[in-house]
Amino acid sequence: MAAPDPIAAAMGVRGCLRAVSSYSSPQVVVVRNGHLGTAYRALQLLVLLYFTGYVFIIQKGYQEREMGPESSIITKVKGVTQSPSKVWDVGEYVAPPEGGSTFSILTRVDISPAQAMETCPEGRAVANATCSSDQDCVPRDTDTSGHGERTGRCVPQAGGTGKSCEVLAWCPVDGDSISESLAEMASQFTVLIKNNIHFPRFGFSKGNIQASESGYLKSCMFNTTSALYCPIFKLGFLVEQAGEDFAELAEKGGVIGVIISWNCNLDLPDAECNPHYSFRRLDPKGALASQGYNYRFAKYYNWNGTRSRVLIKAYGIRVDVIVHGQAGKFSLIPTIITLATALTSVGLGSFVCDWILLCCMDKEQRYSSRKFEQVSPGCRCG
Amino acid sequence: MAAPDPIAAAMGVRGCLRAVSSYSSPQVVVVRNGHLGTAYRALQLLVLLYFTGYVFIIQKGYQEREMGPESSIITKVKGVTQSPSKVWDVGEYVAPPEGGSTFSILTRVDISPAQAMETCPEGRAVANATCSSDQDCVPRDTDTSGHGERTGRCVPQAGGTGKSCEVLAWCPVDGDSISESLAEMASQFTVLIKNNIHFPRFGFSKGNIQASESGYLKSCMFNTTSALYCPIFKLGFLVEQAGEDFAELAEKGGVIGVIISWNCNLDLPDAECNPHYSFRRLDPKGALASQGYNYRFAKYYNWNGTRSRVLIKAYGIRVDVIVHGQAGKFSLIPTIITLATALTSVGLGSFVCDWILLCCMDKEQRYSSRKFEQVSPGCRCG
Amino acid sequence: MAAPDPIAAAMGVRGCLRAVSSYSSPQVVVVRNGHLGTAYRALQLLVLLYFTGYVFIIQKGYQEREMGPESSIITKVKGVTQSPSKVWDVGEYVAPPEGGSTFSILTRVDISPAQAMETCPEGRAVANATCSSDQDCVPRDTDTSGHGERTGRCVPQAGGTGKSCEVLAWCPVDGDSISESLAEMASQFTVLIKNNIHFPRFGFSKGNIQASESGYLKSCMFNTTSALYCPIFKLGFLVEQAGEDFAELAEKGGVIGVIISWNCNLDLPDAECNPHYSFRRLDPKGALASQGYNYRFAKYYNWNGTRSRVLIKAYGIRVDVIVHGQAGKFSLIPTIITLATALTSVGLGSFVCDWILLCCMDKEQRYSSRKFEQVSPGCRCG
Repeated sequence: MAAPDPIAAAMGVRGCLRAVSSYSSPQVVVVRNGHLGTAYRALQLLVLLYFTGYVFIIQKGYQEREMGPESSIITKVKGVTQSPSKVWDVGEYVAPPEGGSTFSILTRVDISPAQAMETCPEGRAVANATCSSDQDCVPRDTDTSGHGERTGRCVPQAGGTGKSCEVLAWCPVDGDSISESLAEMASQFTVLIKNNIHFPRFGFSKGNIQASESGYLKSCMFNTTSALYCPIFKLGFLVEQAGEDFAELAEKGGVIGVIISWNCNLDLPDAECNPHYSFRRLDPKGALASQGYNYRFAKYYNWNGTRSRVLIKAYGIRVDVIVHGQAGKFSLIPTIITLATALTSVGLGSFVCDWILLCCMDKEQRYSSRKFEQVSPGCRCG
Repeated sequence: MAAPDPIAAAMGVRGCLRAVSSYSSPQVVVVRNGHLGTAYRALQLLVLLYFTGYVFIIQKGYQEREMGPESSIITKVKGVTQSPSKVWDVGEYVAPPEGGSTFSILTRVDISPAQAMETCPEGRAVANATCSSDQDCVPRDTDTSGHGERTGRCVPQAGGTGKSCEVLAWCPVDGDSISESLAEMASQFTVLIKNNIHFPRFGFSKGNIQASESGYLKSCMFNTTSALYCPIFKLGFLVEQAGEDFAELAEKGGVIGVIISWNCNLDLPDAECNPHYSFRRLDPKGALASQGYNYRFAKYYNWNGTRSRVLIKAYGIRVDVIVHGQAGKFSLIPTIITLATALTSVGLGSFVCDWILLCCMDKEQRYSSRKFEQVSPGCRCG
Repeated sequence: MAAPDPIAAAMGVRGCLRAVSSYSSPQVVVVRNGHLGTAYRALQLLVLLYFTGYVFIIQKGYQEREMGPESSIITKVKGVTQSPSKVWDVGEYVAPPEGGSTFSILTRVDISPAQAMETCPEGRAVANATCSSDQDCVPRDTDTSGHGERTGRCVPQAGGTGKSCEVLAWCPVDGDSISESLAEMASQFTVLIKNNIHFPRFGFSKGNIQASESGYLKSCMFNTTSALYCPIFKLGFLVEQAGEDFAELAEKGGVIGVIISWNCNLDLPDAECNPHYSFRRLDPKGALASQGYNYRFAKYYNWNGTRSRVLIKAYGIRVDVIVHGQAGKFSLIPTIITLATALTSVGLGSFVCDWILLCCMDKEQRYSSRKFEQVSPGCRCG
């Protein structure tokens, strides 16, 4: 710590001159003791090792860092599959189609083929929908899990034996939909993930595709060792790497995270800055309630003059691409700060040794009489 | 700070031995003065309190931390409502339908029912659209806020008295659309927000649903005290918690942020790591210009052989789910660093007291003659 | 560093009293040497300059900071253009239509007008699709880049001379689609980007629109100097600012990043906290493989009783709006920490000067005999 003598001295030119012609340094007691000396040097060594090994080499304390690069992701799915009623190509099973960082690939659909706006009995699964007479059905009443507004009449259920309240809704309601699986070929679908990052502070950009020829991406497949720069993944590969069973995931739906990490040391050549891929299921899989991933959407037709829709409850594998990144580059200021901290910390050894010495070993106060000099400013007697 | 004696001494084996058999410690002047002593101890106490109270207990300086967990969000809306012309269920009023972290629930629609590509008079709201003769309409001219390319003819306005330039556009243009409100039941819609987080450094995952039985989510509703792990919210509840008026928001549209914070101390049992929900309107509400939230989309029909579309200007409540998070766990290195900083800082008391003493109290320089020993290396006279 | 005397002394009431009635300060050797003194003061000056200039003034070390504000983005595109077959307005060329932070504006489309599910020859571009007899086509075989499941028959190609395996697919397959450009007016489209940020720690919110009258946004256009708070951009302006050629980008597609930075010093009036816009192409433009941005989507029609679709391969300019931000405000704790670090660092000068002195100048050990006092606790001889 800076001794405050400059302040006291720096009055007038003479003080100034004196301040520049001298410097102050702390006075030190050298204690001759083998045990303490060894402990002291061991402590200093430890601190030095920590700073050189951990702070400098592992944490790269001499570098300026930038986290969270600007990142762009373009994804593209390829493949075609068939369900009993339909051929599914990319235009059909990828949603949303825009090729962003989050997209879902449908693997199972429950289709309600031709719904129109009219009145029909409420679905059996809806709470309080069963009735015995019109008195049980309050007109204009709407149930949160229901399909529409009640008309107030009690009518026979669609394919059942009981009676349900009639509703004005998209009819027939989606209780008796047809379930079709698209999973037959889905594990063979390929997903291309184009990712480009940019660290604005260092003006450094890099992408995850490095092609020596224009047709490279047509024939390659991702491989950590030999094809790191070919980001084309089979959907089955993604699911397997995340430790999941494809058939089960396709049945119930789920979210697979593709995590791309860029950890770049810009003091090395650019070729050393490589993406690292990891894969993990992001939604809870063992959950008791509300498992999997599904959503509803509709397609519209003009069917014999009336507007009708096809409502699809889609189960799918959602792929979330997450990009992490950090870059570091040598910079003077963090280097100096780390060095200064290291030097300051080396002095902690004295503190620990003093503690031991004063508490346990300094019986005759020989040491403390040397370390501590008494002074009483204000009275003449030292 | 480390005195540089080891460097001077550590030459040869003898120097090495000497270095290990002794340690150095700063020499200290003990100043007997009640006021300064009290101030000194008070300062030390303050520093200690700051480190134990703020750094250790509040900021948990002994922990390694990880910010920004990997997070996945699946949302699902339920409910049904009715406008004069239509029944609206989830397939109709949620966009995009994929159940991601951002979705909008339509609350009002301006419908332009049957537009086809043909020529018609430009809308009255478009600047420079009114004309008195064909000379006023430049053929092939397009206005940014207009609906299509001008044909060059000046024709009578649709339901008006004036004349407008004719355009080749989706006709009739959307000036005279029908406005319908869906807000009747919208405040009763339920929004389920499934969120799962993962801290990769600590290998810790947790979700915001904890169900003891599979049907739990069918009957529960979010409540901070009794149903924290039932993330089902009424849309009206979200809007109310954000401090907004539902009717007004439904009329003009807006963006409601649902902010989920995970602040986890992993030294405690997992059950202590709980999500915290907060709700805030994210778009500016008092803005003079461009208030609210709306967008246009189209649906297509094959109407009597010609392709026509329904253009919908949709006002809605957009829900943005934002996840924050941090986790901390005891780790040796931050603990040591914080301790070392604390010990170093305790010494700052001497500095302040020296300042006071040397500046104001040390008239006869008794203290400074003890604290500062003069030495002139190079000349014999000390 | 705190000398451990309080621990030794603070035993019993007397020790306690003594501890409060005195304070300890390191003893200091003042070395009279012009060169070293100058070096010492110069070092101290450097450290002081670094702390006042860099840490305090540039890095604002006296402020508490918050990174990553909560942010909401609403976007809206305006404009209309024409391709040979169609008028394209916002409802047609913006996808997804919801006005979020990522959207694409179509600039070129390859249209496959009327596809239906039936059998037809596979496209010529598909590997292994050409055949000479039925033996070359394995029934139920599906190629990843193909359009459907093979029937096992070898049939003449659509408009060609060779033969292809027949597939059950959306036919005719998209090999012979019609390409149409929408780029004619696209550079004149306007993009409104409403952005609002909120720093929860400081309770500070601000938006990027400041209008004095309600019609302001109808007539203004973004300009860094005179219309910073009018976030309306021509698409051509965005592309140009990103350093790209509009015609080329519209042809192949690409991703333009609009980066909004909020760097707010909350110690100043709110009016000093302004957004800063920058524009950059986010996808790699010189890539050999898989250049540009395109995706496929379908629209459905009921065409003479059979469901048919229009498949569109869309090339477009995707706009990604990225918001960065940080805010700082004066706070006591970071101020004290920075000050303490500064004071501690000023002492580093002694360390460097000691090193020079002891290594190079202290021939007669006059200095070191003063700096280092030897003591051997345990034996009587000092």
